[in-house]
Amino acid sequence: MYDDEKILLDAIPSIFSNGPEVMIGPGDDCAVLDFSLDKYRLVAVDQLVSDIHYVKKTTAPAEIAVKLLRRNISDIAAMGGVPSQALLAMTLSAETWSEDEWAYAFLSAMAEEAAKWNVSVCGGDVSSTFSTTDVFSLTITGWVEKDALTPRSAARAGDAVFATGEFGGSFESGRHLSFAPRLDEARFLAGRFAGAMIDVSDGLLLDAARIADMSGLDVEIDESAVPIAAGATLEQALSEGEDYELLFSVSPKKTAELESAWPFKNIKITRIGVFTAKSPKTDSTHDGHDDSTVVSKGFTHFSK
Amino acid sequence: MYDDEKILLDAIPSIFSNGPEVMIGPGDDCAVLDFSLDKYRLVAVDQLVSDIHYVKKTTAPAEIAVKLLRRNISDIAAMGGVPSQALLAMTLSAETWSEDEWAYAFLSAMAEEAAKWNVSVCGGDVSSTFSTTDVFSLTITGWVEKDALTPRSAARAGDAVFATGEFGGSFESGRHLSFAPRLDEARFLAGRFAGAMIDVSDGLLLDAARIADMSGLDVEIDESAVPIAAGATLEQALSEGEDYELLFSVSPKKTAELESAWPFKNIKITRIGVFTAKSPKTDSTHDGHDDSTVVSKGFTHFSK
Repeated sequence: MYDDEKILLDAIPSIFSNGPEVMIGPGDDCAVLDFSLDKYRLVAVDQLVSDIHYVKKTTAPAEIAVKLLRRNISDIAAMGGVPSQALLAMTLSAETWSEDEWAYAFLSAMAEEAAKWNVSVCGGDVSSTFSTTDVFSLTITGWVEKDALTPRSAARAGDAVFATGEFGGSFESGRHLSFAPRLDEARFLAGRFAGAMIDVSDGLLLDAARIADMSGLDVEIDESAVPIAAGATLEQALSEGEDYELLFSVSPKKTAELESAWPFKNIKITRIGVFTAKSPKTDSTHDGHDDSTVVSKGFTHFSK
Repeated sequence: MYDDEKILLDAIPSIFSNGPEVMIGPGDDCAVLDFSLDKYRLVAVDQLVSDIHYVKKTTAPAEIAVKLLRRNISDIAAMGGVPSQALLAMTLSAETWSEDEWAYAFLSAMAEEAAKWNVSVCGGDVSSTFSTTDVFSLTITGWVEKDALTPRSAARAGDAVFATGEFGGSFESGRHLSFAPRLDEARFLAGRFAGAMIDVSDGLLLDAARIADMSGLDVEIDESAVPIAAGATLEQALSEGEDYELLFSVSPKKTAELESAWPFKNIKITRIGVFTAKSPKTDSTHDGHDDSTVVSKGFTHFSK
């Protein structure tokens, strides 16, 4: 993520004011809308830009469609929810338009993938550009029972930090195109074990810091516990993005129960740290514990 | 609109299958979602692409923001509804990032404009591109009372075709950047006078044909009745887009009442034609009436 983008994203919640139906506005994985039902409606948008989020020359239209939908489903999962509808906006270059059946291959793959996840693609927009860039934007809606919502603000001091799966090397290995969003896993966790939850799209430490920030806490990550994907380094596992694994807080009273009740044989969960009360010295670096890192607002140990 | 775009858009409804909550999927101004309340939820997405929808060099960030939001509000209006939330996705070129405060000016204008229309910007995404193109995508949500919905499919044979305002020269005159979406007007019409309704974004004849197509009808437009904007030609009024005026069907029993009850002094309404039963000879051209045109699927008299 460019610095410009990060600075702008940080400013956005203070720019827009939201009405009473908006329970959670900008700054979480999804906006949360309350229409006075027994459920919250979730809504999120995410983009894929050619040669930023995928290599245009070597990526098939179906791979782009699948990634676009799955990363949006991953945002719904991160709120404990179930996806329901999607709207697709795309701006295609003349180059892409000229590739026979490219757009149809993309849309067919999107339709097929959406059906797998019970998502209705109910709207969209198509445009062109004179440049060589293709831009895809997908808005996803979903729902979550009110007592199952897992916003970033719900971590408490003393909560354990857990993560699903393994981290690092997602782009290099091509996993960023084939990952499975942790939807079933999130639904198992939500309302029962997970307090705050996020899907790791921008890097484990950065996304852990986001939960800490929104919960008014610090967080310590035990680097020796971080599950590293085959072929990746610890540094990659901590700082690269596009893992789309879940990172979540669990009350210390529930960690043992979680570890014994976890039903997904092929997806491991790992305890990798702890959320702590915000220290008076914010923006500190290491706190003295071996192999553990405090990630706090404005600091990540890998930052430039 | 490019031919490629049109062909693709026409194919989209048959590509995606929608679930039971989706009352109306792709092909109308908004998707219509039924959450079993007394209202339908509306959701739509629209894009602005630099040097396609606005001239990058001469258009201020605030103008782009205002146009983006208003054209989405116009889609909600076209369904008879009220806008409620928006999600904003944008991909900016390095050139635009490098312009001091450009993105902030854009977002501030978006926030200010959204507040005017009681729209909560509740989510979004920001990305970059290596090309020179800026792409903005806005998803809007809204609601409409179930008996006030004005889908494109609701015209009946014999219904009059009405339009608000004047047509033609929107891009040339700069009106495409400063138009007001006909939200109050649409709310007055919905549930009382308007059957089918559309906002004219792609051209009066083309958009009239869309209502006819979705309603299984033909439509005759009386060219001599079409209200032409100052400085524009009839040809422009019929075939250019970006007018964002409402085009709607009215039962012949209600046209007199509408004309006397219309409360908006500064926005005129004009009866410009009639919806007719589909003639056995579809794809015909003129039907013999002077100054009137049949617009039917696959044919518009201005088409190439």
